[in-house]
Amino acid sequence: MKCTLCQAQAIYKSPYSGQLFCARCFKRNVEGRVRATINHHKLFEPNDHILIAVSGGKDSLVLLNILYKLEARRPGVKLTALTIDEGVAGYRGHGLRVAEEAAKRLGVEHHVASFKEYYGYTLDEIYDMAVKKRVGLHACTFCGVLRRRLINVKARELGATKVATGHNLDDEAQTALINLLRGTVSRLARLGPKPPRMWEGFVPRVKPLRYIPEREVALYAYLSGFELYEEECRYVRASLRDEIRYMLNKLESKHPGMKYAVVRAVDRLAPLIEREVDVKVKPCRYCGEPTARDICRACEVLEQLGIKG
Amino acid sequence: MKCTLCQAQAIYKSPYSGQLFCARCFKRNVEGRVRATINHHKLFEPNDHILIAVSGGKDSLVLLNILYKLEARRPGVKLTALTIDEGVAGYRGHGLRVAEEAAKRLGVEHHVASFKEYYGYTLDEIYDMAVKKRVGLHACTFCGVLRRRLINVKARELGATKVATGHNLDDEAQTALINLLRGTVSRLARLGPKPPRMWEGFVPRVKPLRYIPEREVALYAYLSGFELYEEECRYVRASLRDEIRYMLNKLESKHPGMKYAVVRAVDRLAPLIEREVDVKVKPCRYCGEPTARDICRACEVLEQLGIKG
Repeated sequence: MKCTLCQAQAIYKSPYSGQLFCARCFKRNVEGRVRATINHHKLFEPNDHILIAVSGGKDSLVLLNILYKLEARRPGVKLTALTIDEGVAGYRGHGLRVAEEAAKRLGVEHHVASFKEYYGYTLDEIYDMAVKKRVGLHACTFCGVLRRRLINVKARELGATKVATGHNLDDEAQTALINLLRGTVSRLARLGPKPPRMWEGFVPRVKPLRYIPEREVALYAYLSGFELYEEECRYVRASLRDEIRYMLNKLESKHPGMKYAVVRAVDRLAPLIEREVDVKVKPCRYCGEPTARDICRACEVLEQLGIKG
Repeated sequence: MKCTLCQAQAIYKSPYSGQLFCARCFKRNVEGRVRATINHHKLFEPNDHILIAVSGGKDSLVLLNILYKLEARRPGVKLTALTIDEGVAGYRGHGLRVAEEAAKRLGVEHHVASFKEYYGYTLDEIYDMAVKKRVGLHACTFCGVLRRRLINVKARELGATKVATGHNLDDEAQTALINLLRGTVSRLARLGPKPPRMWEGFVPRVKPLRYIPEREVALYAYLSGFELYEEECRYVRASLRDEIRYMLNKLESKHPGMKYAVVRAVDRLAPLIEREVDVKVKPCRYCGEPTARDICRACEVLEQLGIKG
């Protein structure tokens, strides 16, 4: 089995196109597709300061390395890496070190922002409070809400003009299906490929790996020799997302291209919905962060826990 | 376990609302929801001549009986039943008799239109031709395309102003997911609750059972003592729809309300898409039937088989 492009030993066959790739051509192909996403959807502009959210997991390491290859030398562009330390004992430490080393190796400035420092409590402490107060929300819900807020605050502090995250094709297809199955149509609008409209105080998020299947991101990480850690956060539990992941993988294996079809469908639907659902973003009454609500979701969660925003 | 409404012996518990129903209140509740669908989405107008597509299966029998209850006595409204005889030896005969008797019992005019008579060939004959000519389409594809054309032709011939079909909540949720997974966004527009815009020569189709789950349609049929036949068409085979049905049922049992959420999401998306995808319907170049293509899908299929439209 030879690489379709260079005749070297093939190591991967695309289940969709049937094309065979050697390690080098595979990596180049992935990078080319990320470049095409960036160009086609105009994810970045000249003089962007891109803050890359790097957890230390495979997706974020691949994102950091590919953005470094594609963007770092473009004049005026600045890359910075940010890791959020949620404060989960015995879990986050390793990812933090991996993220730090990956940024250092590329000479990319690296920052860490912790829940403890910003909110006054680690996720472990917050979770304990939630259990005691019988707040009926799962740890992943707090964590997501509080992490997104902190990323936006840090991005603004650092003067970033874009936040790039490592969401891959599988993540995006799963989220689209979850929103359809929950009937939360307006959330599909936020899933579109383009950075959302500029809102005062909100640093736009972009997802350059949005069309790369998870298995290809994993293979890219493996072929690049990235240090991968497989520890699982102790709060992870069976969720609707797991069910949908399982179903999508099963469907995809029988009907290659379905994940891609779902994400492309969202590409078409998102602008139609956005035009309709005219979201008014204004400062949160408590913390001043941009929100479509009266009080932002983070403050709402903090209030339920009895913590000040 | 008592009926929540009348304290009679309950026979059904709604997995979504938790409400308990006796047989009579259950049937009334279903009828009330169909009435609400008809009113809310303005499915019918005064003086409509409604052609009900009755295969003889449970969905179409329930549709016929409920529309008879709700619509037959409204002044100016006319109901007619139509059964399509595709020509599948040993299968369709029973359904035909069931449909005929059901219409007769209600005093509703009943018509039969056959593939043999209109196209010159039964589905069995068409399938044999397809196999010989190696037309790579499944029997269900021919059947659906040719059946829809024949229903429209007959509806026009009979002077019907609406065609009502027995699609239930499960059918609609499955079709929505199939379209999303195939990325055929524009098809979602046709799935909306309202009759589509009027096009020359096209009799609008409506689906009054669109929000009734399949199991409730089946229970309504059972409680009404309808003669149910469980024969399966010989051409039915494992399809994407079966996979999606299985997945949706699994999800629904863990998260009641998901099928409904999907269909409600389509309700919101369909008009947005319809506004965008401005379908131009014109007469088919071969047969003159309304189509968004140059040659309609039925003529395309007939041409592939070497049969004149």
